[in-house]
Amino acid sequence: MLSKSQIGFIKSLHQKKYRKEHGIFIIEGIKSILEFIPSAFQIHTICYLPQYQSLLPKLPSNIKLFEVNNAELEKISTLQAPQGVLALVHIPKESNYSIADLKGKYNLVLDGIQDPGNLGTIIRTADWFGFTQVICSENTVDVYNPKTAQATMGSLARVKIWYTDLEILLKETDVPVYGAMLDGKNLYAVNWSPEGIVLLGNEGQGVSDAIGALINESITIPKVGAGESLNVAISAAIICSEISRILQK
Amino acid sequence: MLSKSQIGFIKSLHQKKYRKEHGIFIIEGIKSILEFIPSAFQIHTICYLPQYQSLLPKLPSNIKLFEVNNAELEKISTLQAPQGVLALVHIPKESNYSIADLKGKYNLVLDGIQDPGNLGTIIRTADWFGFTQVICSENTVDVYNPKTAQATMGSLARVKIWYTDLEILLKETDVPVYGAMLDGKNLYAVNWSPEGIVLLGNEGQGVSDAIGALINESITIPKVGAGESLNVAISAAIICSEISRILQK
Repeated sequence: MLSKSQIGFIKSLHQKKYRKEHGIFIIEGIKSILEFIPSAFQIHTICYLPQYQSLLPKLPSNIKLFEVNNAELEKISTLQAPQGVLALVHIPKESNYSIADLKGKYNLVLDGIQDPGNLGTIIRTADWFGFTQVICSENTVDVYNPKTAQATMGSLARVKIWYTDLEILLKETDVPVYGAMLDGKNLYAVNWSPEGIVLLGNEGQGVSDAIGALINESITIPKVGAGESLNVAISAAIICSEISRILQK
Repeated sequence: MLSKSQIGFIKSLHQKKYRKEHGIFIIEGIKSILEFIPSAFQIHTICYLPQYQSLLPKLPSNIKLFEVNNAELEKISTLQAPQGVLALVHIPKESNYSIADLKGKYNLVLDGIQDPGNLGTIIRTADWFGFTQVICSENTVDVYNPKTAQATMGSLARVKIWYTDLEILLKETDVPVYGAMLDGKNLYAVNWSPEGIVLLGNEGQGVSDAIGALINESITIPKVGAGESLNVAISAAIICSEISRILQK
């Protein structure tokens, strides 16, 4: 049972302004929540329908638990079809990154991704291919947006996300920058370095000019058919897969 | 200017029942509409904000044109942020397919995809990689769902979509069936036939048992990291890209 003010509080977290103010975001669904419980994230509250209680593990006593009914869950959920369990999770303090963290591996860098689902799907894909961090320009959509968190399917609990000034980052690093562009080198013919940055731009505008100037190699997914473009999460996945294929050889 | 009944009619097309009854679906955005105008699809009506009129080509006189204002467009639009132009398009009569149409190329076959955005993204990706048709099980989401049509970004004007009983189809064809599964052969090590069917299953349940039994080769995108799964549109794209890479060689 939730009070009116608790419902109002959780609903406020649907908006970025209040997520930032309270330092809390929402994740939903038992599968995702079970990924967050053992992670470095701190869980604040779990609301569950009675039939979901048995699916929850033994939890530290500092996590607040509320059994809710369908009507309450519908009010607080960010989903059209709520999934029975909803958790409030503390937004971690932004850790300082060091450009040394880019070395010795492949990193995804996103310049102005706007669609929350695209960002979430990119994080989920990164996790599959072992890309341990995704670095976002400051104008990229909020990773704690409920649609983003949901689309990561729990991968947000593992993949490290930074927001930073990409121009500074890319000027400082000596890791080669591969940029997904419309007029680049055939993806399948790229000579991949053992470490790298894969840069993807905004859904409509692509990579911004200032950032595009810092690309070392432009790459393109060869078009066979008539389609005009690919979704950015699709492009990211195809490039991750190709790098993974080459590095596994 | 639209009448109340015209607004009611267009709004009804947001629902599958009325799309079916009237044989009309909605597409939005000038880029998508410009793909449909020269296609085999018949356009019924175009509603546009005044500033978009100049972007429209000369149109056959049987297409109804309505200049609308923002308030009207918001009422009829399926989008949170309407894109200035909305078209009503006739749903084509279902053409009879012949299993001979599966020969000599690669085809995407979808078993129970439920998310409209996933279906649309798969069609957009198919179009990029030159897959000219997507065959859907009868329980796959409606391709004329506004979210699907939108996510195709105009590719729906080109890629042929069939709904059919997959069990009958896969039993009749001798084109090899490659099924995306969790325990299949490494995608990058598959010996691709010159023609084939790529089969993808439902977001949560995967390929149904009856259809799974008709797979000739199970394939899996090798996992490097810790992610639990990939989005189905992402999986489809990675497989299309790999086939495209091999066939281009």
